Amino acid sequence: MAKNEQFVKAIADIETDFPQWYTDVVVKTKLVDYGPVKGTMVIRPYGYAIWENIQRELDSRFKANGVENAYFPLLIPMSFMTKEAEHVEGFAPEVAVVTHAGGEKLEEPLVVRPTSETIIGHMFGKWVESWRDLPLRQNQWCNVMRWEKTTRPFLRTSEFLWQEGHSVYASGEEAEAETLRMLALYREFAENVLCMPVLTGRKTEKEKFAGAVATYGMEAMMHDGKSLQSGTTHYMGQNFAKAFNVQFTDKDGALKYGYTMSYGVSTRLIGALIMTHGDARGLVLPPPVAPVQVVIVPIAQKKEGVLEACHVLEETLKNAGLRVKLDDSDNSPGWKFNEWEMKGVPLRIELGPRDIEAGKMLVFRRDTCEKQEVSSEHAAETVVAELAAMGNALFARAKARMQSRIVPANTLDELLAGVNGGNFVRAGWCGERACEDKVKEFAQATARVMDDHHDAATCVCCGKPARHTVFFARAY
Amino acid sequence: MAKNEQFVKAIADIETDFPQWYTDVVVKTKLVDYGPVKGTMVIRPYGYAIWENIQRELDSRFKANGVENAYFPLLIPMSFMTKEAEHVEGFAPEVAVVTHAGGEKLEEPLVVRPTSETIIGHMFGKWVESWRDLPLRQNQWCNVMRWEKTTRPFLRTSEFLWQEGHSVYASGEEAEAETLRMLALYREFAENVLCMPVLTGRKTEKEKFAGAVATYGMEAMMHDGKSLQSGTTHYMGQNFAKAFNVQFTDKDGALKYGYTMSYGVSTRLIGALIMTHGDARGLVLPPPVAPVQVVIVPIAQKKEGVLEACHVLEETLKNAGLRVKLDDSDNSPGWKFNEWEMKGVPLRIELGPRDIEAGKMLVFRRDTCEKQEVSSEHAAETVVAELAAMGNALFARAKARMQSRIVPANTLDELLAGVNGGNFVRAGWCGERACEDKVKEFAQATARVMDDHHDAATCVCCGKPARHTVFFARAY
Repeated sequence: MAKNEQFVKAIADIETDFPQWYTDVVVKTKLVDYGPVKGTMVIRPYGYAIWENIQRELDSRFKANGVENAYFPLLIPMSFMTKEAEHVEGFAPEVAVVTHAGGEKLEEPLVVRPTSETIIGHMFGKWVESWRDLPLRQNQWCNVMRWEKTTRPFLRTSEFLWQEGHSVYASGEEAEAETLRMLALYREFAENVLCMPVLTGRKTEKEKFAGAVATYGMEAMMHDGKSLQSGTTHYMGQNFAKAFNVQFTDKDGALKYGYTMSYGVSTRLIGALIMTHGDARGLVLPPPVAPVQVVIVPIAQKKEGVLEACHVLEETLKNAGLRVKLDDSDNSPGWKFNEWEMKGVPLRIELGPRDIEAGKMLVFRRDTCEKQEVSSEHAAETVVAELAAMGNALFARAKARMQSRIVPANTLDELLAGVNGGNFVRAGWCGERACEDKVKEFAQATARVMDDHHDAATCVCCGKPARHTVFFARAY
Repeated sequence: MAKNEQFVKAIADIETDFPQWYTDVVVKTKLVDYGPVKGTMVIRPYGYAIWENIQRELDSRFKANGVENAYFPLLIPMSFMTKEAEHVEGFAPEVAVVTHAGGEKLEEPLVVRPTSETIIGHMFGKWVESWRDLPLRQNQWCNVMRWEKTTRPFLRTSEFLWQEGHSVYASGEEAEAETLRMLALYREFAENVLCMPVLTGRKTEKEKFAGAVATYGMEAMMHDGKSLQSGTTHYMGQNFAKAFNVQFTDKDGALKYGYTMSYGVSTRLIGALIMTHGDARGLVLPPPVAPVQVVIVPIAQKKEGVLEACHVLEETLKNAGLRVKLDDSDNSPGWKFNEWEMKGVPLRIELGPRDIEAGKMLVFRRDTCEKQEVSSEHAAETVVAELAAMGNALFARAKARMQSRIVPANTLDELLAGVNGGNFVRAGWCGERACEDKVKEFAQATARVMDDHHDAATCVCCGKPARHTVFFARAY
């Protein structure tokens, strides 16, 4: 069957050429396409539907936490960027700049936002007057732009979609607590919605956000053992509050600067879940975000009663709140199996004349690629339970893989061997930038996050006493 | 009471200074604020929540119609803009241009999208191959930028949020039918969700979208009798398909150009509903999109049992799916009444010790500003019914106003008197651009839409036989 082969050949081998596998999968399943400007992507409906599901899940969590959505302008005066010294140093090399508009040269160039601390700081400075106005907690869903040299769909593109939350508190303790609370929210979301285990912890000074006092990160292990930064939260202290005059009159009548923090995740999460769960056949989508959770494939669909039974099943499942697709196209069942497997649909139900007669249906689960015959009575309950089981299994499988691939190291050679083997390396670090730079140079690995549970004795690089225990890895 | 007076004085008189009333209302109710770059706006949480409600209602309608969401890049190569001659002429004067990025001057300047026909045309050209790929119907929710000289929050800003839907069909008939179907969808949405009567119809050549064969518009009458264009749909024929090679192999094996159409509404709708329903006290928000549908104000809230009863009521209403706010702040009831009236909350429920004892509650309706005492039994049903009644009343009131303010005219003098009186003028037009220009010059009025029911005998300008019956008005 020609079309079948075409599919199988369409995707590079996941074990021997993972980068090409990724490119093949994201393009051929129509998640994404390349835009006409270098480094840009078009998010196609199948990819955008994943993003909508991510948005819905995260947005309801933010709102339940008391965060409100707003929208701030895309264009930021260049002068804003320079008000926080570290911030401009970090972002200036990556910005896109509007110099002309309305047929005229602008007096001041405008930066297309790479992130919005500056413009939101400016507005918060206008809005905050009294301790009664605090905390102020807002979030926006928007596009941002960072001009990158090397780009890959979802992972690193010049424009991407994200949410960025920004809060001001009266005290540093409260702002730091929010920084950790949002990190925990991201972790819960990653685990329960993306079925993706993560490591969370504080970033080193070298790896922190430009302008932050402290950055916390959420890192996930991809199929090839590399790490993907999947979300960050930042405690800014008074850096941005001072740069943008975010001041309030406290209960004691004194005028004080606020303490700010921010947090963000992006369409990069789509890349993260693809590279966490995907397999040789293509995508394996976590049920909570899959655009199609169940595909129904009729067998011998021209036989009387088959399509009718499929439609009844489709309605039953839709009424249970499931996202269902009945594939009644003219393609052969085999062609459909391949297509929907490549597209990562969690469950496939096959329904033919004999199944219908026997009151049964065949359920294929995408993660195990196993079929089982089940009664078609209580179909909705069966499917809901199977989707939940698959979500749990995806998480357990990814977690077991990550745990088995976190190795210790006492020396740079051990660290190099570890990352060469596709592992995260857990090792001591003295806290000196020189040693962190040496690790990068020697092993092309970076400090992803520091472990909250510090127990390493010596620095993996210089052998001096360790001040931190760090997860080192190669990273996207 | 000082704070009360402050509120009353805060808003200019709606009858004598409507423009200032509008500015006061949008800023003081915290719907919006001015951004640091001229002509930009910040949509604050109270305004953004209205947008989210608009999005949810429209998005579900698009999806029910089979349209899928996607996301296309913000930056468009300048060369794309010039591929459709009328399009570039219309939009070139308004675009913002990125000339530098990543620290370097770009080889080709990039336009910040003012609309996405060109870049979406380019992608559709890549994706469409066969008649099996048609129709292709996609929509995106995004920001767009049009550099305007005179700006007002929501109505005209250099950046705004919108949705833009784009479809390709195999035949012109189908694409035209979709253009009219989406116009009807917008109208149904305006009437049922925004409680806003509209006139719909085809635009004149002068007023059509740059690059379209035909544009259809939805116009609403504002409080001052001016018209606000609130949504448009465009039939493009093969103009963009030819410019971007959107070609398909038809069933007969021949290679043919597709026919495209597009449609959009924006955050301008927020301005439309404010200026349709607002009154001397401030906003009057249609229940389907109000961020807070019901505010509960406790009376003598320190008395035992009052806050408890308010919380019970709050839960009851929330469980019925309503958006409810219990204002248990320290402000006086009078202060709260003023604040929530200015913010346009549809219903206010006052609950004090005597009400609780009597099993009653006082319900204030924002549109009529009348209070009635009702039983607190079946509170949810009562409130749901009252919100529905208010929605119907808002629509009926606005519709009656619009109908009473559409006047006929046989001469330019009558037309001028009509628009001077704050009316829409329904009059004949010969179809010549010269007459349309003359009306603009003489009466500062433009052809908003042409009436489907053409019955005028002579052109209001030249007196020759009328080819169309047109609604002329001054417009935002």
